Amino acid sequence: MDAFACPLPPGGAATVLLGHGGGGSLSQQLIDQLLVPAFGPADGVLHDAAVLPAEEGPLAFTTDAYVVRPLQFPGGDIGSLAVFGTVNDLAMVGATAIALSLSLILEEGLPMPVLHQVVASIRLAAQRCGVPVVTGDTKVVERGKGDGIYINTAGIGRVDHGLVIGPKAVRSGDSILVSGDLGRHGVAILAARQELGFRTELHSDLAPLQEPVQALLAAGLELHCMRDLTRGGLASALHEIGRGAGLGVLVRENAIPIAPEVDAACELLGLDPLAMANEGRFVLFLPAAEAKRALELLRRFEPSAAIIGSVQGDSVLLENSLGLNRRLELGRGEQLPRIC
Amino acid sequence: MDAFACPLPPGGAATVLLGHGGGGSLSQQLIDQLLVPAFGPADGVLHDAAVLPAEEGPLAFTTDAYVVRPLQFPGGDIGSLAVFGTVNDLAMVGATAIALSLSLILEEGLPMPVLHQVVASIRLAAQRCGVPVVTGDTKVVERGKGDGIYINTAGIGRVDHGLVIGPKAVRSGDSILVSGDLGRHGVAILAARQELGFRTELHSDLAPLQEPVQALLAAGLELHCMRDLTRGGLASALHEIGRGAGLGVLVRENAIPIAPEVDAACELLGLDPLAMANEGRFVLFLPAAEAKRALELLRRFEPSAAIIGSVQGDSVLLENSLGLNRRLELGRGEQLPRIC
Repeated sequence: MDAFACPLPPGGAATVLLGHGGGGSLSQQLIDQLLVPAFGPADGVLHDAAVLPAEEGPLAFTTDAYVVRPLQFPGGDIGSLAVFGTVNDLAMVGATAIALSLSLILEEGLPMPVLHQVVASIRLAAQRCGVPVVTGDTKVVERGKGDGIYINTAGIGRVDHGLVIGPKAVRSGDSILVSGDLGRHGVAILAARQELGFRTELHSDLAPLQEPVQALLAAGLELHCMRDLTRGGLASALHEIGRGAGLGVLVRENAIPIAPEVDAACELLGLDPLAMANEGRFVLFLPAAEAKRALELLRRFEPSAAIIGSVQGDSVLLENSLGLNRRLELGRGEQLPRIC
Repeated sequence: MDAFACPLPPGGAATVLLGHGGGGSLSQQLIDQLLVPAFGPADGVLHDAAVLPAEEGPLAFTTDAYVVRPLQFPGGDIGSLAVFGTVNDLAMVGATAIALSLSLILEEGLPMPVLHQVVASIRLAAQRCGVPVVTGDTKVVERGKGDGIYINTAGIGRVDHGLVIGPKAVRSGDSILVSGDLGRHGVAILAARQELGFRTELHSDLAPLQEPVQALLAAGLELHCMRDLTRGGLASALHEIGRGAGLGVLVRENAIPIAPEVDAACELLGLDPLAMANEGRFVLFLPAAEAKRALELLRRFEPSAAIIGSVQGDSVLLENSLGLNRRLELGRGEQLPRIC
């Protein structure tokens, strides 16, 4: 993994200073030399709020804070995570991101090249999703009151389908699919923290999910519910959706795709791969009759996508290879802090 | 000033734990016991993104991070600040807030009553502005990697006027008004940090600005530019707007309203009241012919509102009581960190 490296404008501070968050000339420098070149506006004049053109349909709105540790990991960094994570939350209601906000909480003493690298990564990720960063903010906290960079993004999305997508739309008998194999992000973070005890070439699955979701919508599939499998992984998502729907689910353990390296790492560390975080995977609920078509579409984007079970009963159950069912436990949440 | 005090649900943790940010059952508890009761939705089912009904006109979009220290200060707390601050940024383009996002970065060990109090304050402030909190996120960082609570809010606003409000709309000859006396927020924060060396009854000016702005719009005034006078205060705002407009301003020092207690505190500590932060004051640029009507309207909300100068020349100048002009300096920004 490369160290952060990024050319700096001449004459600037080598690290982030408290004054960069103070609203004076240092703040202005940061805006002029880093943020305006990265995100526009073209005329370089910023205002308190961005004004967006009128949209015809309903809008989606979401936000996430990102506190991932370390800032850079195999397959991404806090910057790309902050863009794709929010774009993906919009995708989960079938929306296409049209505008992002970007808010930075920087720790005094952060090396300026790290900040430049993260901003460059945000810019690239936003370009890849075709979404502009239209408004932002920067605060600085004293040394020891942060951990380098925390990022918050919020996103507005365009909803141009007529479906109601969410837990309430889930029906008994629905098929349950995952868009790819699980747990890569969590293991990649552990590797980056050198907590694995062995080397792995595994990368985070971090990726934007707009395209597969738009493909599902374009195919006219009746999407009932989607959720990206971040903190808490598949286990949390199944519990939350089941609870919201007032229904149970049964998933087959050996239908759930998990890469051997992920399985090995989880085994070694006593972690549950079904509770591991992903940043480019989602679970999909839709009528059983449409499951095969959805799977074909999802596999164009990620060959490991799979049908893993169905909606039935009133508990969240896991069927093992012997055909025995057990409850899928919802962890308390300490398994892996600061994963996103 | 009262200490934070708020009843807790029975059986909950006394402080914030890392697991509250982990996406498992502790996260779910926090959502169920604190966030859903405070902000809805009515059916208690949360999804990755909120879907908002279609709007006819253009939309405004803004975000801010809040890292104010201490969390509570005379006249407000980080919660009310995070709501009014974002509502005010929307108001500065003449927009009315229609939806807020709320993202919390909590430090492990934060006493749960403090969190409950801040959430209650957010709820009250949002109710006062008539805007729902529709989406959110909670992350937890380890003890020593935060400072209690950092908040990020983003806001969407409805724009239902035909004006282009911003620095580019400022014209030579425009009058410049402030909506009230300056520097109260900064001094209130200093007092709360016990850095003043004397006691003061002074409260922050923290307040929502939607109403005065809507009154100005309803009166049909040709608003050219507005900016709320937060970090960097009037000095930063005049520099930024002047630069964006490509014009200078001349303000009369003794026309700028400053409360005697603020003046005294600034004198004592060697601070510039014109660079002090406000959280319920804005500067307004509009045609000179409309200045008197605007002033009358503003004084209905805050009697200390004043006409302070006009747009002319190409520098930001301050005229003293002897009629002599000097450049109004833009501070570097270290004057008072973590004011908002």
